[in-house]
Amino acid sequence: MPVQDRNISPATIKVLRPRLPAAASLLPYLERIDSSRTYSNYGPLNGEFARRLGELVGGSHVTLTSNGTTAIELALRLRCQQGGHCLMPAFTFIASAHAVCNAGLTPYLLETDPNSLALTPEIAAAALNAVPGPVAAVLVVSAFGAPPDFAAWAAFEQQHGIPVVFDAAAALTSLSGIGRQPVCVSLHATKTLGIGEGGAIFCADRELMERATAMTGFGFVGQERQSSLRAGNYRISEYSAAVGLAGLDGLPKRIQEMRELTAAYARRLEGKAVHLQRGVGTDWVTMTLNVIVPAADVAATTQRLDDAKVEWRRWWGLGCHRHSAFKDVPMSNLSVTDTLAPCVVGLPFHDDLSPDDLDRVADCLQ
Amino acid sequence: MPVQDRNISPATIKVLRPRLPAAASLLPYLERIDSSRTYSNYGPLNGEFARRLGELVGGSHVTLTSNGTTAIELALRLRCQQGGHCLMPAFTFIASAHAVCNAGLTPYLLETDPNSLALTPEIAAAALNAVPGPVAAVLVVSAFGAPPDFAAWAAFEQQHGIPVVFDAAAALTSLSGIGRQPVCVSLHATKTLGIGEGGAIFCADRELMERATAMTGFGFVGQERQSSLRAGNYRISEYSAAVGLAGLDGLPKRIQEMRELTAAYARRLEGKAVHLQRGVGTDWVTMTLNVIVPAADVAATTQRLDDAKVEWRRWWGLGCHRHSAFKDVPMSNLSVTDTLAPCVVGLPFHDDLSPDDLDRVADCLQ
Repeated sequence: MPVQDRNISPATIKVLRPRLPAAASLLPYLERIDSSRTYSNYGPLNGEFARRLGELVGGSHVTLTSNGTTAIELALRLRCQQGGHCLMPAFTFIASAHAVCNAGLTPYLLETDPNSLALTPEIAAAALNAVPGPVAAVLVVSAFGAPPDFAAWAAFEQQHGIPVVFDAAAALTSLSGIGRQPVCVSLHATKTLGIGEGGAIFCADRELMERATAMTGFGFVGQERQSSLRAGNYRISEYSAAVGLAGLDGLPKRIQEMRELTAAYARRLEGKAVHLQRGVGTDWVTMTLNVIVPAADVAATTQRLDDAKVEWRRWWGLGCHRHSAFKDVPMSNLSVTDTLAPCVVGLPFHDDLSPDDLDRVADCLQ
Repeated sequence: MPVQDRNISPATIKVLRPRLPAAASLLPYLERIDSSRTYSNYGPLNGEFARRLGELVGGSHVTLTSNGTTAIELALRLRCQQGGHCLMPAFTFIASAHAVCNAGLTPYLLETDPNSLALTPEIAAAALNAVPGPVAAVLVVSAFGAPPDFAAWAAFEQQHGIPVVFDAAAALTSLSGIGRQPVCVSLHATKTLGIGEGGAIFCADRELMERATAMTGFGFVGQERQSSLRAGNYRISEYSAAVGLAGLDGLPKRIQEMRELTAAYARRLEGKAVHLQRGVGTDWVTMTLNVIVPAADVAATTQRLDDAKVEWRRWWGLGCHRHSAFKDVPMSNLSVTDTLAPCVVGLPFHDDLSPDDLDRVADCLQ
């Protein structure tokens, strides 16, 4: 390692550098597409990709979708009528709110638990009487890929009779025990398994998932070219499935590397006031690794990161209510979110980071 | 050519066998993706693909979309408020009706002109007083790729103050003179330029198209991660753009082959009672080549095709009102459509057809 010349400032450390399967690893799948001359419409690679994704999450029916946002839209459309309110956390990526609106529902924004960074059944139940109209659904969001509490939300649905859908956009590799409540994931380039643009819905309810798949292709059920459901086009191409299959081939190695990188961060953060999410790097992995910084030190921390030329990002911004397109939707008091959101700071996380880079990031965190 | 053994029945002639760029021609573009490590979010291949598409249609602003259906949804959302009726022809692929509903509008189904197979300004104007509520927009559909009459519809919009959007799903290579009314195309595998799943909006209105592009990515305007428009995710990946760029490289040759195949059909149909669409194969090309069969001979014609093991397809079925998902939408009298739709019969059209195959198809047509 050359001695750093003090007159040359170090290169910026990027917050994210996605790496999807290289062309060479796509080639065998692309050659299968050339042979089949099927390029979309639930072709053979789509079928194989869906099957392998179902196995990855421990056995589930699967519907592939054009992206994670449309996965949520379809799942909500399947589970409730248009026109009501959908409870959802204010602290989530803004795609969640767009999906709720595109499903014909009005978001009602709620607080999140500051420990799990997630909406809880208790928060949702406490809000039911405050919502100005019927509650059609709850959209539960996985915090940056953390496994959702399926059992607690199944109990909530049973108790209150309100359908639950999971926005588990970043949680594909954290899922197990999927039940009859649809679980939506993203396969965007920034996720653990990225295909460029894509998504999936998982659910144990076979009949519901057959309708979900029909809704991705104009409501045609089976081989019929008869629209029997209001729907649209939310399919992925065989090319997208090819990227997914190559990605699955390399996924175990990739997850291991993500665990190791997270552990390398965790060692450097020991004894500091900042902390990572519970279980990250051991129980589950994420490409959007965050530190939760004490509120009093947020401004100084982000200043130190900027000064050290370390890119950082608030992946979910300051909450949906801070986006002008959603500032007028109904919401609960969001003082917890307003305090919490600035403290959640995304750190550089990719396979170009050297030990020196990690030291440089960690030195900014107290 | 071996003499046909009379005891061996001939192989079925398929109605469609798409052919998209082979893996080898994708490779240079895939290697660029490997280098950039950008996989979506308006990456360099997206930019180049959009620019080349704009040049292809004679100069236009371009927004790439996840497919042709979502292109229509976004164009309608940009041009009118939710809640009104959208005039549209009953005779179109069912995606048009799904897109209108997904844009928050109620379809009002109209007749088409039996000569052009398209909705005309005269039909739309005559219906205005019959619609049970405000008319928010008109969705004009290109008949299987035929060039829409932009001038006539610009005059309609000017006269009636009703925004017009074009569903030109199959017409990418037929477009020129695009004005300020958005023109939506499909890049599905079954189109002249196919990328698997994809679409595009063309429009001369730069500001409108900047909003369209923002709507494909959560309403983020420019580099801001601030949602300022109600939107969603309708982007295509860099992989999809790679297929598009390779497809554009081969497009002139492909169009020439489609012209020649159409001409080969036209020669065989001379003097027969069936006819092709006006200008097809000379002024424009389509992958969904139809013959219009005299009503009295439709049943016998399709029987002859079946007997000769020639696949055929009514690409648009019998009209949107014949799909159970749309049977209850408001509509005008559709007796012209009910007579016309069965007569429009899609013929085999792909690069595996031999002269003998064409003879066999033509022998079924009288």
